[in-house]
Amino acid sequence: MAAEPESPAALLNAGLFLSEVREQPEAFLRLLEHQAELGTAARALAERAPTAVRLVGHGTSDSAATYGTYAFGLLPGLTALRDSISLTVYYGATFDLSSSAVIALSQSGRTPDVVEYVARTRERGALTVAITNDPDSALAAAAEIMIPLSAGPERSVAASKTYTNELAALALLAAGVADRLSEVTDGIRRVADLLAGAMDGLERAVAAPAMAFTYVGRMYVIGRGLEFATAREVALKLTETCRVAAEPLTATDLAHGPVAALDSLFPVWTIASHDESLPAVVEGADRVRQAGATLVASGPAADEIAGAAYRLAVPAPPLPILSPLLSVVPGQLFANALAAAKGLDPDHPEHLSKVTLAR
Amino acid sequence: MAAEPESPAALLNAGLFLSEVREQPEAFLRLLEHQAELGTAARALAERAPTAVRLVGHGTSDSAATYGTYAFGLLPGLTALRDSISLTVYYGATFDLSSSAVIALSQSGRTPDVVEYVARTRERGALTVAITNDPDSALAAAAEIMIPLSAGPERSVAASKTYTNELAALALLAAGVADRLSEVTDGIRRVADLLAGAMDGLERAVAAPAMAFTYVGRMYVIGRGLEFATAREVALKLTETCRVAAEPLTATDLAHGPVAALDSLFPVWTIASHDESLPAVVEGADRVRQAGATLVASGPAADEIAGAAYRLAVPAPPLPILSPLLSVVPGQLFANALAAAKGLDPDHPEHLSKVTLAR
Repeated sequence: MAAEPESPAALLNAGLFLSEVREQPEAFLRLLEHQAELGTAARALAERAPTAVRLVGHGTSDSAATYGTYAFGLLPGLTALRDSISLTVYYGATFDLSSSAVIALSQSGRTPDVVEYVARTRERGALTVAITNDPDSALAAAAEIMIPLSAGPERSVAASKTYTNELAALALLAAGVADRLSEVTDGIRRVADLLAGAMDGLERAVAAPAMAFTYVGRMYVIGRGLEFATAREVALKLTETCRVAAEPLTATDLAHGPVAALDSLFPVWTIASHDESLPAVVEGADRVRQAGATLVASGPAADEIAGAAYRLAVPAPPLPILSPLLSVVPGQLFANALAAAKGLDPDHPEHLSKVTLAR
Repeated sequence: MAAEPESPAALLNAGLFLSEVREQPEAFLRLLEHQAELGTAARALAERAPTAVRLVGHGTSDSAATYGTYAFGLLPGLTALRDSISLTVYYGATFDLSSSAVIALSQSGRTPDVVEYVARTRERGALTVAITNDPDSALAAAAEIMIPLSAGPERSVAASKTYTNELAALALLAAGVADRLSEVTDGIRRVADLLAGAMDGLERAVAAPAMAFTYVGRMYVIGRGLEFATAREVALKLTETCRVAAEPLTATDLAHGPVAALDSLFPVWTIASHDESLPAVVEGADRVRQAGATLVASGPAADEIAGAAYRLAVPAPPLPILSPLLSVVPGQLFANALAAAKGLDPDHPEHLSKVTLAR
């Protein structure tokens, strides 16, 4: 199951971030051991029949929240939103929360305004669920229900396995509400296998674009639908580990303004999956090519993107909803390789610490 | 009332974008002539008592939708979200829409997937409202209720007065639901006066930073709470008219990763208002300064940002909720001046057309 590095030397040289990226298949399996908690939480959510599932988190956890809006929309057909933390915590807005569920995401469980948001919304009647890698954290204590991410300790400042386990936990919760928990559990087990099998090849494949992009200062990362979460997370990895100004955009956002900034020094990373969003991504990639920018194509449908200078395909998942659990990995590996090419340490980006206590 | 240009020569030289930016005070007054339609729409929204107000739009209209989530959250205490268009239009998600209201924003009223979203959600029971500058558009026809933006023809590809009128229309609708329509109407009339009085000074004030930023390739634009809409819109203007990779971030997002990319060649634009979000923005600005990046401070509370190299303060609005109607203007004027400094035509960015038909 464990990803096999190319050689013992590569293993010795692997930093924290790369080791944790490689560990993602095993981390999925550790989360799946918590079927009972996941099932209980999903039943509580189903009983509440929320008119709104309010997702909150910052940074990587906010990328996962984007995935959650699709997982809850597509599996049980529930309206899920990335809620504004500031409305509740700073402005004191008074929503009727009696038919709301809250899902709060935080690796450390210590993000102050996320903890405060959960405390206030619970007090005001929302059903609150915490998803965190630290079951003893303030966030875990603040929420009515806690799902342990079980990703194992994450020591790199840039998150990887806690992100993919957040996606898996959200998929499992949404599936549980839709009475499809065992189907999605089997799907994630299969994703773990597929990812373990693909890891070595992907590590080799990112080397060439990373070298070519050594002096790149700005990029767009394009996804749509489910894969917009992937676009957000890949852009965040590139920004924090490689000091690239990388902006996530939907394929449609791109056409509504940002395409005007592109040129041959401004490459674009695309994420393509075999689902209903593919035509929009293909059309967006055409626009990028017409603007003269270099294209990277990733995701299970990378081969559908015409004219890409680099292709980083991942295996097709057993269920389309699970595609983002695989699609993010080439972006993580590329960020690690690009940081090395730029002479940066991906484990310790400047001005960042593992637990962010910013309000 | 009309903004006075510095001289007749300046008026002759003004391009479409600058002329339309200057016209914003008058455009507000034209919208206020539609009290009756606004009142009727607000009553229909209040009667529906929606559990979710679903806002949709692309580009500039999506920045306005961000404002809408705060206006509806703060005035009538309703849960409003920027809904995923792709979930409904491409993935065919089946939400219960019987207690939903939809507000669709589009300058042209021709954005295909926005029109399609309204058609589908109306069919499935949502109360649908279109806010558009073209009362004869497909979007106007698709929705049950239509609010004319009345901004007057907008000819520049980069939007300005339709954005601020979208904000005003959303504020008025939200105020109407909260039974505060006349208070917010008076507030917008006062904002029009304040803006007309401030326009000339702002035009002069943006000249120095625009010159200094001639070779800038990347920027962050930081706001929080209500002013996150302003951050999104200013970043979009810089991207489309100046080819700057400008990313909007909340002050808290900044700390969760992107701060690592900053250096002295990567300036940050901040938007500061006198409201509950100010401490987070002040803290974010401190982080920017520590990273060695140049700071620009704008908004009514620009003077609260320590160590800013440039300050572009706007007058304080009569109601905090109306701050974004003023705060965006220095960003628009700066984008216009920076485009000129870079030798670009802000009226006709490359690869863009006024009506975006991208899916």
